[in-house]
Amino acid sequence: MPDTAPSVPTFTALLFGLSGCLVDFGARAEPAAGPTPGALQSLRLLHHQGVPCAWLDELEDALALSLAEPLPHWVQGVRAPTGNPWPAPDACWQALMRLQVARLDGCVLVSGNPRLLQSGLNAGLWTVGLASCGQLCGLSTKDWLALEPRERDLLRGKATLQLYALGVHSVIDHLEELDSCLADMALRRYKGEKP
Amino acid sequence: MPDTAPSVPTFTALLFGLSGCLVDFGARAEPAAGPTPGALQSLRLLHHQGVPCAWLDELEDALALSLAEPLPHWVQGVRAPTGNPWPAPDACWQALMRLQVARLDGCVLVSGNPRLLQSGLNAGLWTVGLASCGQLCGLSTKDWLALEPRERDLLRGKATLQLYALGVHSVIDHLEELDSCLADMALRRYKGEKP
Repeated sequence: MPDTAPSVPTFTALLFGLSGCLVDFGARAEPAAGPTPGALQSLRLLHHQGVPCAWLDELEDALALSLAEPLPHWVQGVRAPTGNPWPAPDACWQALMRLQVARLDGCVLVSGNPRLLQSGLNAGLWTVGLASCGQLCGLSTKDWLALEPRERDLLRGKATLQLYALGVHSVIDHLEELDSCLADMALRRYKGEKP
Repeated sequence: MPDTAPSVPTFTALLFGLSGCLVDFGARAEPAAGPTPGALQSLRLLHHQGVPCAWLDELEDALALSLAEPLPHWVQGVRAPTGNPWPAPDACWQALMRLQVARLDGCVLVSGNPRLLQSGLNAGLWTVGLASCGQLCGLSTKDWLALEPRERDLLRGKATLQLYALGVHSVIDHLEELDSCLADMALRRYKGEKP
């Protein structure tokens, strides 16, 4: 895979959910929970590659801004879209316009929220669903790690199936797997697949 | 072709250029020139099929509104987009949001303007280029019909090549051919092709 990396096209932009994606799902109740495992590393790598990133969420302004506080300031936040709410495509297109992307081609949405993922699918984006850290499991990283392995497997399996049934292009557990997921998606694009 | 029509999906929305597409390219100098051949029939048919339509243009407000005057009032006009100008995708996404479309899938842009067509391609739309009535030939219908047939063929051929080189999905001469072009495009979608 690394041998082919230089020839595959890079991505145009990445959109992320906030709660249950970049930021721990439990952070709404426990603000100290902060970014999810892999979130800051993923953003750092994308920034290094020159890929613009934004987060979007439907939370009220004050909460969203406080959750986003530990994220790098170059990551744009797109709150309160003026168009139709998720699952309409409006919020995703508005985020892409905020990032001033030149084209839809190569734009990706990463989220654990089925309604936001549906918005991304409706907007024509590549979509990556998060199984274990998002809304479908609905647990903070701490509570997730406190589960019995068998309970985790059951919840993860159920969430994964729900996300694929929605039509997302890839499902990963959490953002620590994002880099290899994007490498795989880049190859799919290179081979001519369209979202 | 008509036999297969009931099984293929209908289109989600159609966007049109104004000058040189729905309205005669010469109408800027000669307002009486009005809608292009096939424009009103195409709109009527799409309306009957329940497909929402909008026009977009970069002309100044007063001129655009006077050119659009003979068009049915249910066709929305999207003037002065607030984002980046063509060929950025912003204007097309804004038009789709204005039409409150639920998804990008099945949205089509029809235009004779290469910069607007490029905006449609960047926005992820299906695109139909107009060879003879648009900006590349740059003639009113009256002046076009006054040309020698050989001159017409030469101009049309040159414009067609330029539009395909841009990457548009179909090229037609004028809107009288739109209905059969859309039927063909519907089959391509049905067979799994994506824009």
